[in-house]
Amino acid sequence: MSEPEKIEDIPDESVGKGKGIPNGGNAAKTKEDFDLAAIYVSDAQYNRNIYFDTSPEAVRLYLRYNHWVSQVLLYFFILLDLSLAVFEDPAVFSLPIWATMLVELLCLLVFTIRIVHYAKVIPRDKFWKDPKNICIIVIIVLTLVDMIIYGALKATNYYGVRWSRVLRPLLLVNVTEGRQLRRAFRSIRNALPQIFYVFLLFMFSLLIFSLMALKLLGKRGLTTIDGSPYFTNYLEIIFDLYVLVTTANSPDIMMPAYNASYYFAIFFILYILINNYIFMSVFLAVVYNNYKYHLKEEVRQLVRAKRHKMVRAFAVLQDQREGREPVVNQANWNQLVRLVQPDVSNAHRELLWSVCDNNNHGLTGKVAFVQLADLLNIEVITLKSRPHPLQSLCPSLYQSAPSRLLCKLVQHRAFVIVYDLIILVNAVFIGLDEKNPLIANSEWAFLALYLLEILLKLYVFEPRAFFSKHSFWNWFDTIIVISALIATIINSSVTLPGTYTSRQILDIVFILRVLRLIRVVDSIKRFRTIINTLIRIGPAILTFGQLILVVYYVFAMVGMELFKHKVKFYEDSSDPTKAYCGNVLLKGTAFAQLNYCKNNFNNVVSSFILLVELTVVNQWHVLSSGFAAVTHGSAKLFFVFFHIIVVIVIINIFVAFVLEAFFVEYSVDKSDLQTSLEKKIEELELAVAQETLEDNLVNAMETIDSDQGTGQSANNKPTLMFKIASKRYRTVDALLQRMFESDLDPEDFAENDDQNGNFANPAFSAA
Amino acid sequence: MSEPEKIEDIPDESVGKGKGIPNGGNAAKTKEDFDLAAIYVSDAQYNRNIYFDTSPEAVRLYLRYNHWVSQVLLYFFILLDLSLAVFEDPAVFSLPIWATMLVELLCLLVFTIRIVHYAKVIPRDKFWKDPKNICIIVIIVLTLVDMIIYGALKATNYYGVRWSRVLRPLLLVNVTEGRQLRRAFRSIRNALPQIFYVFLLFMFSLLIFSLMALKLLGKRGLTTIDGSPYFTNYLEIIFDLYVLVTTANSPDIMMPAYNASYYFAIFFILYILINNYIFMSVFLAVVYNNYKYHLKEEVRQLVRAKRHKMVRAFAVLQDQREGREPVVNQANWNQLVRLVQPDVSNAHRELLWSVCDNNNHGLTGKVAFVQLADLLNIEVITLKSRPHPLQSLCPSLYQSAPSRLLCKLVQHRAFVIVYDLIILVNAVFIGLDEKNPLIANSEWAFLALYLLEILLKLYVFEPRAFFSKHSFWNWFDTIIVISALIATIINSSVTLPGTYTSRQILDIVFILRVLRLIRVVDSIKRFRTIINTLIRIGPAILTFGQLILVVYYVFAMVGMELFKHKVKFYEDSSDPTKAYCGNVLLKGTAFAQLNYCKNNFNNVVSSFILLVELTVVNQWHVLSSGFAAVTHGSAKLFFVFFHIIVVIVIINIFVAFVLEAFFVEYSVDKSDLQTSLEKKIEELELAVAQETLEDNLVNAMETIDSDQGTGQSANNKPTLMFKIASKRYRTVDALLQRMFESDLDPEDFAENDDQNGNFANPAFSAA
Repeated sequence: MSEPEKIEDIPDESVGKGKGIPNGGNAAKTKEDFDLAAIYVSDAQYNRNIYFDTSPEAVRLYLRYNHWVSQVLLYFFILLDLSLAVFEDPAVFSLPIWATMLVELLCLLVFTIRIVHYAKVIPRDKFWKDPKNICIIVIIVLTLVDMIIYGALKATNYYGVRWSRVLRPLLLVNVTEGRQLRRAFRSIRNALPQIFYVFLLFMFSLLIFSLMALKLLGKRGLTTIDGSPYFTNYLEIIFDLYVLVTTANSPDIMMPAYNASYYFAIFFILYILINNYIFMSVFLAVVYNNYKYHLKEEVRQLVRAKRHKMVRAFAVLQDQREGREPVVNQANWNQLVRLVQPDVSNAHRELLWSVCDNNNHGLTGKVAFVQLADLLNIEVITLKSRPHPLQSLCPSLYQSAPSRLLCKLVQHRAFVIVYDLIILVNAVFIGLDEKNPLIANSEWAFLALYLLEILLKLYVFEPRAFFSKHSFWNWFDTIIVISALIATIINSSVTLPGTYTSRQILDIVFILRVLRLIRVVDSIKRFRTIINTLIRIGPAILTFGQLILVVYYVFAMVGMELFKHKVKFYEDSSDPTKAYCGNVLLKGTAFAQLNYCKNNFNNVVSSFILLVELTVVNQWHVLSSGFAAVTHGSAKLFFVFFHIIVVIVIINIFVAFVLEAFFVEYSVDKSDLQTSLEKKIEELELAVAQETLEDNLVNAMETIDSDQGTGQSANNKPTLMFKIASKRYRTVDALLQRMFESDLDPEDFAENDDQNGNFANPAFSAA
Repeated sequence: MSEPEKIEDIPDESVGKGKGIPNGGNAAKTKEDFDLAAIYVSDAQYNRNIYFDTSPEAVRLYLRYNHWVSQVLLYFFILLDLSLAVFEDPAVFSLPIWATMLVELLCLLVFTIRIVHYAKVIPRDKFWKDPKNICIIVIIVLTLVDMIIYGALKATNYYGVRWSRVLRPLLLVNVTEGRQLRRAFRSIRNALPQIFYVFLLFMFSLLIFSLMALKLLGKRGLTTIDGSPYFTNYLEIIFDLYVLVTTANSPDIMMPAYNASYYFAIFFILYILINNYIFMSVFLAVVYNNYKYHLKEEVRQLVRAKRHKMVRAFAVLQDQREGREPVVNQANWNQLVRLVQPDVSNAHRELLWSVCDNNNHGLTGKVAFVQLADLLNIEVITLKSRPHPLQSLCPSLYQSAPSRLLCKLVQHRAFVIVYDLIILVNAVFIGLDEKNPLIANSEWAFLALYLLEILLKLYVFEPRAFFSKHSFWNWFDTIIVISALIATIINSSVTLPGTYTSRQILDIVFILRVLRLIRVVDSIKRFRTIINTLIRIGPAILTFGQLILVVYYVFAMVGMELFKHKVKFYEDSSDPTKAYCGNVLLKGTAFAQLNYCKNNFNNVVSSFILLVELTVVNQWHVLSSGFAAVTHGSAKLFFVFFHIIVVIVIINIFVAFVLEAFFVEYSVDKSDLQTSLEKKIEELELAVAQETLEDNLVNAMETIDSDQGTGQSANNKPTLMFKIASKRYRTVDALLQRMFESDLDPEDFAENDDQNGNFANPAFSAA
């Protein structure tokens, strides 16, 4: 690697100033410098906005704080803490109180260690200013207090409530790594004021319609289908009409009035039009509009903070040159990248360097250097062309005419079509009765065919390329087919001796068989496009999964305290109390008639499934009325509240997110940065033709003349090819940032943001 | 009015060429010229894209064709034709066949006259190239054929089907005036290919899940709540899981499996997540994305066509000047505007002229002239300041100190608050039992209070200003209060003699009482904003109303032929067959148990209400299973098809429209054109202060010194004030165009579009 021209050692006060940049100038860079720069780059890469101390000791601690092992451990203990609900009363698997308490104490200990570690990394005043730290400390203290009280009450045989359990999911929000989740909560909080006013208007409309319903229908002596008076109680009308907005009791709630006269249908149609179609669309519009607006602002701030960090990293590693812009030389740059991302191959690193050092001067300026964080986030697939191992072993056989013909056949489009047809035939056979011996034995034939396909492909394509990291469908096929083979063998060996068949194994066999059919999707290009878009927004959907988990957990904890053991489910169908779920209060209710006994809050799993049902909305009025019947009418408020929070707010934000992500996918194709990297790849003639790749990643490999080079350098020709996995994003942030990249000025380094003494962190308070 | 400098008479070939522009140059403009120009302007204003003949006779015919009377007549006969369904078998009110046939013949005659009229207006080749004309002719012919066949069958006592009835709503789409509706259908058609692929993928996922359900659950011997086998028939599973996507049978469909084991809940949750949340969001995203894209393209073409027409109008009326740009002088311009819009006041017209003739030269250039169509579309409220009539009658009394104090009190904010409180108290009283004499009499007190409010306001504010066209709430209040007064008086006079109370009058009284409460909304600014936005998108929602009407009508006609009289509703509750809706096949079905007998296709009104219920989705599986039970299993396809068309496609387009309209409302505030008009108004110091207007339109009037001028000219000071009703749109197009105005180049006159021999009309074929 060429060392660039030596430069004068002039410390630059304008850059080296400030707390975060201790080592400006041209002194030989120490290990501490590299550590610091690497931290800045990695913080920029993962959008960590932590104002850490820059003393060497704090930097080492900070490195350890961000180490993946400590993060995995933290999440493990959070999950352990959350999953304690499975073992605590009301439990799925009952454990003695001391056992769960002990585990919880252990978790609290880990969280305490983690927060102390964090306190040592960042300056004291910053630590106490950050609401999420306060929040964690408060959670730990409150949990301890609650455990002591509960333990004391239990020891003296009093009734105790473990109220601090609702605080547990808040840990997920407030740990340093919960950035995405905090952002999601912020976008909800930001949308709340506007939602609130629409909601008030909606409630006003609901009250007016209820009043009208009471006046119009209350005095007519109509009865509902079970004979109770219809629309006579104002509060009940409000609840019924609220339920009608969710469509859950349509058209039943209308039928008594409709049976009395056609004209009353007008009332209900008007109500549904205004409150269901118009208001619900307005909710979505308001949520979506707010979401878009605030997201834009947040991502802009995030990108500014990222650039700021990259400028700091640059300042640490820069070489000063008199009268010229400071630069970073290749050696330092290489060491930095190796530190930040040790798994990057040499070739990949050289490619990145050639993007940063566009003019081949052996050094990179500030503008080019700042890209590094984004460049590292772009996933580059390095393809090495290797000869097929069989060619090395017995070249004469592999190169023979029949073998070549076979290769051609397998690579032909007809091969794919034939196997798609086989899959379709297989689908029909699966649908038929497997008791028929012919059908049962056909399974072996299909398995053999699928195995043959994999073996043929392995014969034709280089195995390491076939099983490369990004060949999703190859992995999918192989795993499914081999699992199915194993399961089928086990199943038939279990079946043969006696007549007993293990249901579990058979279930697995069936699932695997059906899953195999999914492969057809990959053959149709239009489908692949849709699926790829869905896969791309997958990680972001996971953030919403966490959000839902937090909300569900809180509601499950509260619901379990309120409703546990009020409704019982009897496995034994002969029990006479089964008809009313073990609670006489439920006699004759729709809840009992529909046999909803298992929809209860008797343990955390049931609670979660019940909450899913409430999210789906249908029949939620039956469920809420059931629980109101066994406790008190006001219990319905719990369910209405859940509906407002989850369905009106969170699901709408989810839809807004999917819409926005789809629009970005449709409108933007590749970000500017990726294009610059791609340009470089094309410039160096290292690109893999896009079209061939689209068809089959492995095909492309075969068209390249084989060459035994290990590809250490990019100079000797294409033994090594690059392809940008442009459609995948390592982080959710990358997707979000891409959404709004067009608004950003590439020359804006956000240097004046330092005046605040902190990175521009979006306005935040613990959720 | 000043005549501008006289200009040389040089016919300009470059402008006067072309079929549409017969009269370039400076010859004195004839009546025909003005007619032609007026037609171009009015076509531009209302976005009519009709390539009419420019011969004076054709122009006269065209004027008559576009006259509002002929349009109203046309729509009257279309509605008459559609409403025949009420009287035809199966009828709400039965009429003899000859009567409905006669009316239908009359309608057909009107349509024929209309299309012949149209054929005379436009060149023959254009007429036969337009699919919507062909469509109307085909509809007329087919209807005649059907009527003859049906008449012959009936005469010979055979069973006949009036199949041409499904064609009737297509008239609504294909008449010249159905532009908005055709556009809505086009946006659906454009979105279809993309929706189709997502739908296929969705169906694939549905089939895979169904297969898995069959294999996992079919063999376990589970039963549903009514004892029938659970998940054993593949087709039924597909239907059940399709219904689950609409959430209509959640959680019932899951309960048998869930009762058997917790693990099966995973299957259903996964299914709901993928097919309900993900796929339904993707449907919305695809529809919305397509909608946005195509709408943009269409509106761009519309605006180009509009400009083209304005350029033609300009060419007809222009005066040529040697070496200078052609212009139109004020006299011609005035006559044109008078022709186009006779109801525009002189003052308003002078205001518009001062916008077109910005430099006061007495003539307007092409760029300024082209704005005219848009300027005419901006609603300008002309306010005349008049003294209160009482002041003219007895000025001493009206100007006395107590009278002034009263005016101040009424105009005070507290007055509004006091009346809001009265409304709230009234709401409580309405909620209470009206049998109580105190409550019943309180109604008189409230009525008196409301009347007093109106009288006080009339005392303080000038009555004509109080009841001006745009004072919605004043009109609302007065109408509601006076109607309530009349209804209450009638009601009590009817009640007093005997104990009998007319239900109908009482209903009206109650509705009026409750409606009065709505007034509170106007006092809260946030609510007003939301409501204003809703009112603004109202006209566009009406287009969707037409769309829904067309689709409903077609489905109602088909449904009536398929299912009429299969399910019967008995008013008499003692009839034993009532329990199963008069059809033994329904015995024991959920349809009969839930007493859905009145949800039938026995007449067009029932059918429409049933279709609304199907649109709301909940319980649609019960309804479809009911109708399948009385006919054939494949009847479910009718309902599934309805769901796909109405809920997946049309409702999503509706939501997309509301979202887009809301975003435009949030982001754009006023169009450039409106601003230019407003600037002019401000320049001339004729503006009404915005803030005072926001509070109360009438308040502002009082602050202006009274002056008896009639305001013929804008030169003598503000006896006349203008205000732009900027937030209202005369046409739906104006709203749509405003949405995409930012993309358009104001200097682009679309002159080369003429080469196609027609106005740029968006690709269209009859729906």
